Amino acid sequence: MAIAIYPGSFDPVHFGHLDIIERASTHYDTLIVATIRNPQKAQQLFELDEREEMIREVTAHLSNIKVEFFKGLLVDFARDHDVRAIVKSLRAVSDFDYELQMAQMNHRLSGIDTFFMPTSPQYSFLSSSLVREVARFGGDVSSMVPTVVAQRLKERFAK
Amino acid sequence: MAIAIYPGSFDPVHFGHLDIIERASTHYDTLIVATIRNPQKAQQLFELDEREEMIREVTAHLSNIKVEFFKGLLVDFARDHDVRAIVKSLRAVSDFDYELQMAQMNHRLSGIDTFFMPTSPQYSFLSSSLVREVARFGGDVSSMVPTVVAQRLKERFAK
Amino acid sequence: MAIAIYPGSFDPVHFGHLDIIERASTHYDTLIVATIRNPQKAQQLFELDEREEMIREVTAHLSNIKVEFFKGLLVDFARDHDVRAIVKSLRAVSDFDYELQMAQMNHRLSGIDTFFMPTSPQYSFLSSSLVREVARFGGDVSSMVPTVVAQRLKERFAK
Amino acid sequence: MAIAIYPGSFDPVHFGHLDIIERASTHYDTLIVATIRNPQKAQQLFELDEREEMIREVTAHLSNIKVEFFKGLLVDFARDHDVRAIVKSLRAVSDFDYELQMAQMNHRLSGIDTFFMPTSPQYSFLSSSLVREVARFGGDVSSMVPTVVAQRLKERFAK
Amino acid sequence: MAIAIYPGSFDPVHFGHLDIIERASTHYDTLIVATIRNPQKAQQLFELDEREEMIREVTAHLSNIKVEFFKGLLVDFARDHDVRAIVKSLRAVSDFDYELQMAQMNHRLSGIDTFFMPTSPQYSFLSSSLVREVARFGGDVSSMVPTVVAQRLKERFAK
Amino acid sequence: MAIAIYPGSFDPVHFGHLDIIERASTHYDTLIVATIRNPQKAQQLFELDEREEMIREVTAHLSNIKVEFFKGLLVDFARDHDVRAIVKSLRAVSDFDYELQMAQMNHRLSGIDTFFMPTSPQYSFLSSSLVREVARFGGDVSSMVPTVVAQRLKERFAK
Repeated sequence: MAIAIYPGSFDPVHFGHLDIIERASTHYDTLIVATIRNPQKAQQLFELDEREEMIREVTAHLSNIKVEFFKGLLVDFARDHDVRAIVKSLRAVSDFDYELQMAQMNHRLSGIDTFFMPTSPQYSFLSSSLVREVARFGGDVSSMVPTVVAQRLKERFAK
Repeated sequence: MAIAIYPGSFDPVHFGHLDIIERASTHYDTLIVATIRNPQKAQQLFELDEREEMIREVTAHLSNIKVEFFKGLLVDFARDHDVRAIVKSLRAVSDFDYELQMAQMNHRLSGIDTFFMPTSPQYSFLSSSLVREVARFGGDVSSMVPTVVAQRLKERFAK
Repeated sequence: MAIAIYPGSFDPVHFGHLDIIERASTHYDTLIVATIRNPQKAQQLFELDEREEMIREVTAHLSNIKVEFFKGLLVDFARDHDVRAIVKSLRAVSDFDYELQMAQMNHRLSGIDTFFMPTSPQYSFLSSSLVREVARFGGDVSSMVPTVVAQRLKERFAK
Repeated sequence: MAIAIYPGSFDPVHFGHLDIIERASTHYDTLIVATIRNPQKAQQLFELDEREEMIREVTAHLSNIKVEFFKGLLVDFARDHDVRAIVKSLRAVSDFDYELQMAQMNHRLSGIDTFFMPTSPQYSFLSSSLVREVARFGGDVSSMVPTVVAQRLKERFAK
Repeated sequence: MAIAIYPGSFDPVHFGHLDIIERASTHYDTLIVATIRNPQKAQQLFELDEREEMIREVTAHLSNIKVEFFKGLLVDFARDHDVRAIVKSLRAVSDFDYELQMAQMNHRLSGIDTFFMPTSPQYSFLSSSLVREVARFGGDVSSMVPTVVAQRLKERFAK
Repeated sequence: MAIAIYPGSFDPVHFGHLDIIERASTHYDTLIVATIRNPQKAQQLFELDEREEMIREVTAHLSNIKVEFFKGLLVDFARDHDVRAIVKSLRAVSDFDYELQMAQMNHRLSGIDTFFMPTSPQYSFLSSSLVREVARFGGDVSSMVPTVVAQRLKERFAK
C-alpha cells in the first residue's frame, strides 16, 4: 500500500493542482490531498471546509483520493497516516529554493522523501493568488479552474 | 497610433523607472504610465495623487507621456485605452518568474502582449522599497531619485 | 516605419519561434527575422540557406516579415537596416542572465533597445536542440514544428 | 585592525549562522555580530535582548566576537564602528538578487564592500523561520540549533 | 510492479547518485539505473561498461536495482521496459530549467511522468565533472565517491 | 600577513575584473591574481604570458598585487602560497550555482574559504567572451577594457 500526500493551500484548487492530482494518483495506491489549516494567513479567501469541498467535487472521478486537512508539521501528519512520499508540484525557479529547503528539512525530521512533479506547460502560469485576483475584478477564470470553482468564486465576489 | 502602458506602484518613482520611461517612450506614439491604486498595501508611503504628481514632474520633458491610475485588472484598463502593449522592466531573476506568470496570464485574458525592457546596469540595484528605507533613516538618495522626489522624501520623513 | 529584428539560430525554426514571430509582427511595420551565420558552431544541423528557406515557408502568411542573415555584430546589422528594436523571446531563467547581458551590451554599443517577449506557455519546453535530438532518434515532432520542418528533419535523418 | 560586521535578525541564531561566525571570525581581527532591531516585523519570536543573549552564549568560545544591535542604516552603524567589510551568508539563489541589490546599494552609500560566504552544505536548508515553525509544533530542533537555543525555543512554545 | 528509471551519465557514479539510488529504490519494485551511451561526448572519462560495472559494485547491497544502458530517446527505452516513472535528482537551480524542459518534453512524447528528488544537502556540491577534475590532479576524493570508484580514478589518472 | 587569491582566466582582463582587484586589494596584505593555465580550452584568445602581462600593466598602480599562474587544483596552489581566502566576483545568478559548488568543494578539500564580491553595477554585463566577440568584429571596446588591452585586441584581430 503506497500512500502519498499532496499538501497545499488550495485556495482555491485550480487546473494546475488538478493536473498534478490526476497524474500523481496513477503512481500511488492512495493519494491524500491535504489542505493546510493556517488561520493566521490573512489573505485566505475560502474557509478550510469550502476548500476541501471543492477538491472533493473536482476529484470525484478519481477513486483513490482522500481529502484531509492538517495543522502542525506536515511530517507528523504524514507519519500518522503511513505516508511514504510527499508530492509537490514545481512550477518555476522561484518556488525551487523554498521547496528544496522544506524537502530537505522534512527528510531530516522524518526520513520521508519529497518528489517534485513538473507542472504541465499550459498551467505553468496558474496560481491560486492570480485566480483570486482575476476573479475579484470579474475576469474570466473558466480556463483556469473547474466550473464548480468558478461558480464559487463568482458567488464569493458577488457579495 | 501605437499606445503602450507601463504599470507600477511608483512609490516613489526613481531613476530606474525614469530610464525605462524615457527609452520606452521613443518606441510608441503614447506611453501611459499607470499607477496602481492598491489601498490594501500596508507599506505604502505616498498617496496615489502624490505618486502621480511626482511622475508628471519628472517626465515633463517628454511630450508623449500620459500619467493615469488604474484599479482592477490591468488588462481591462488596457483594453479601455486601446493599449497594444504592456511594458515592464526586468531587473533581476527574482522578478522574472512572477512577471512571466503575469504576462502569460494577461495574454490569456486579453491577447495583449507584454514586452520586457532590461534595466540599465547602473540602476539595476534600485527599487522603491530600498529608496524608502534609505530615506527613512536620512541616507543620501540624490543618486537614486530626481531632485523633486528627494525633496518630497525629505519632507515626508521630517515629520 | 518601425522596424524590429528577431535574431536567432533557427536550426530549425519551431512553433515557439513562430509564435513570437506572429505576435511580434503585429507590433511593428516590418519584422526582420535574422538568422545568425555562425560557421564555427559544430552542432549545426541545417545550412544557413535551408534555415532561411524554412522560415520563409512557415511565415508566408505574414506580409511584413523579411528573412535575412547576418554575421558579425548584431548591432551593426541592426543599424544598417534602420532597426529600432531587437525582439527576443524569454523562455526560462537560464536564458535570462546571458540575454540580459547581451541586451545591456548591445544598448551600450548602439543605443538600440531589446524587448523580451515571454514564450507562450504551451511552447515553453521547446528548443531547437531538443527538436533535433527527438528527430534524430525518430521521435514524433509534429507537435513541435510546422509540417515542412518535420519533413525536412525526416529527410535529414533518413540519410 | 580589520573589523567586519555580520548583520542579521538571528531570531533565533542557528547552526548555519554559527558556522559563518566561526569561519568569518578567523579572517578578521574583530567580527561584530549585529542584530537588527526591527520593531515593525510582526513575526518576531524573541526580543532583541534575548536574541543577543543567545548569540553571546553560543559564541562564548570565540574571543574576537562583539555582539551588538543596530537600528537605522547598516552602513551608518558600520562607519561609526570603523567596519571595513560586511559579511553575509549566501544560501540559495532566492537570497541572491536581494542581497546583491543591498550590497550594491550599501557600496554606493558608503564605499563599504560586502563579502558573501557560502553556507556549508549540511546547513543549506536551515533558516530561522523554519526552525521557529518546527519548534512551534514540537518538532526536534537539536540538529538545527545549539542546546541553549533549543531550550529557549522549548520554553517559549511551552507557554 | 512499479518500475522506475534513474537515467544519467554516471561518469563516474558518486555519493550523490548513490544517495538517490538508495532512497528511490525504496519507493519502487524495481529501479533501473540507466547509463546514457553517448559516443560524441568528448569529455568522457570511463567507457560505458566501466561506468556500469562501478554502479553494479556500489549498489550490490540493493536487491531491486537493474543496471542497463540506453541510446536513443529515453522515453523509447522507458516504454520498452514498462517504466512508469522517470526519477531525476535536483541539485541546484541551474539544473532546473533544462530538466523541467526535458521532463515536459518526455511527458509530451510518451505520457511518462518525471519525479524529481532533491539531493541530500551534504552531497549538493558534488558532480561527476568536479570529481574527475579533483582526481585528475591527485586530490582526495574519498569523501565524494565509494572506495571502488576512488580506486578506479586513481588507476585511470596514474597512466 | 593576510594573503588572498583572485583566480580567473582573464582572457583578457576587463574593467569588471579590475574593479574587483582594486576593491579586494584594500582588504588583504597581498592579493594574488592567479591566471588559470588551461591548454585544452579551445576558445582561448591570448596566451598565458600575454594575459599575465596585461594584468601586470593594468594593476601597476597597486602595490600589493602579485600576478601568477596555476595549473592543477586551485586549493593546492593556494596552500603552497599560504593563501587564507579565495576571492571571486559574483555577477549573475547563472554564475551562482557553479561557483557555490566550487566554493563548497574547495572548502571540503582544503578548509580554505571563498568570499564572493558583487560586481559593480556598471560592469555587471561585462565578460571576457563578450569583449572578445565585440573586438573580433571591430566593435568599440574602450568602455569595457583598459587602453592597453583594447590595443592588444585590435592588434590580435588585425591579423
